[in-house]
Amino acid sequence: MMKNIAVVLSYDGTNFNGWQIQKNGPSIQESMEDAIFHLLKQKVHVSGVGRTDSGVHARRYVANFHADCTIPMDRLPYALNSFLPEDIAVSGAVEVPEDFDARFNCTKKEYAYYLFPSTLRDPFHARYAYRYNYPLDITKMQEGAQYFVGKQDFASVRSQGTPVKSTVRTIFWCEVEPVDDLIRIRVCGDGFLYNMVRAIAGTLTYVGGGKLAPKQVRDVLLACDREQAGPTLPACGLFMNRLWYDDTPELDRFRLSD
Amino acid sequence: MMKNIAVVLSYDGTNFNGWQIQKNGPSIQESMEDAIFHLLKQKVHVSGVGRTDSGVHARRYVANFHADCTIPMDRLPYALNSFLPEDIAVSGAVEVPEDFDARFNCTKKEYAYYLFPSTLRDPFHARYAYRYNYPLDITKMQEGAQYFVGKQDFASVRSQGTPVKSTVRTIFWCEVEPVDDLIRIRVCGDGFLYNMVRAIAGTLTYVGGGKLAPKQVRDVLLACDREQAGPTLPACGLFMNRLWYDDTPELDRFRLSD
Repeated sequence: MMKNIAVVLSYDGTNFNGWQIQKNGPSIQESMEDAIFHLLKQKVHVSGVGRTDSGVHARRYVANFHADCTIPMDRLPYALNSFLPEDIAVSGAVEVPEDFDARFNCTKKEYAYYLFPSTLRDPFHARYAYRYNYPLDITKMQEGAQYFVGKQDFASVRSQGTPVKSTVRTIFWCEVEPVDDLIRIRVCGDGFLYNMVRAIAGTLTYVGGGKLAPKQVRDVLLACDREQAGPTLPACGLFMNRLWYDDTPELDRFRLSD
Repeated sequence: MMKNIAVVLSYDGTNFNGWQIQKNGPSIQESMEDAIFHLLKQKVHVSGVGRTDSGVHARRYVANFHADCTIPMDRLPYALNSFLPEDIAVSGAVEVPEDFDARFNCTKKEYAYYLFPSTLRDPFHARYAYRYNYPLDITKMQEGAQYFVGKQDFASVRSQGTPVKSTVRTIFWCEVEPVDDLIRIRVCGDGFLYNMVRAIAGTLTYVGGGKLAPKQVRDVLLACDREQAGPTLPACGLFMNRLWYDDTPELDRFRLSD
């Protein structure tokens, strides 16, 4: 019997060319479609909550696909994992209504960006945080981060990519906090422009390093000019961190520890 | 002027065939000797505190070499790192007495072994912890761990390797504790037999899983029979964690966060 199945997964994006199938290089989407093909002998299209760029990680990602599947939902993660590489893991699966779509049903997304402020490298952070060579004032970053919150035009912190109708988005929170020897920036919104979180993180390094006063973040956003904001930081520090599906709260059961 | 230089380093061992130079496959020792050659134009022998097996990590490792070096010691880590791959990082360097030897001057070593008790995979633990498919009782493991402490014959928890004069070693502590969703076993001793920590960790999974009562660890050790103990767990969970040099306490300054 055909089912619409939503899966919760996580992946270390280091060795992938992002979520979406690419001509050259492995993608998470392709790995998922291959695993489903090996398990169910069906060629399916797996829809993801969004594209992630090459090297970006996901602590939590939701995708869905339509397939004829008799494997119980609580066994499906184990079955799929046996056909997936070590850097991708499915942690949950639920049958969802026919019209559920991982992208369109997602109501809120949270990304996390990790900075490692250190002149010296640490091999255990190399894959998962961006090393920043200069000191960062966390208090100033926390103050500056608040200016990103709200319904605003985010044209200053996006890269050119697929054309979008509007550059207005709503950011619900933007929190900066120390986590061990790292600084974690968590940004939650109803949607994100291309490279938006990496540009927000880059702007916050300007604030933390004293190039911009915290309150100048407001002016940067009002300018709607990419040149006024900080740089787009590297992909390695970025994680898709948490997703909300208001109509399908059971997807939250499979949340990994933060 | 010739100097004896001790360096503190850390490495992610996933992609190396261990510390020692091997005919096939990269080693940390070879990477270090190459970096020194590129930097100082001198072929040197780098002596490490000990061999680590293929895939074993080091949060802290000490090595020394004799070279003609005019680079100040506080700059040397940065200079060496620029010639090292991302998965090896030097965090400190000190000039030590002519007769200092990273191996023989080390008075105490601590290893850490990380277990991830979960039926489901987590891609962010795959490189750094051994996933254990069954529940583990931490309290029992803590009780069983205490039997490894003291000056004893550890023949039951070693693999055959280079012949040794004696299988008696002194273990100062063996601590089991939860760290986030992992279980960390830290073992500190004056020396270790081949695969000893991985066999201690394997024996503690027997205790945590109920195959052995905590107090039976004592009998396992008294038997001096490898068959009585638990399995040698995989290399990925093992870290050289901390080293003590009583004559050169300044080496401890470069300790990374735990």
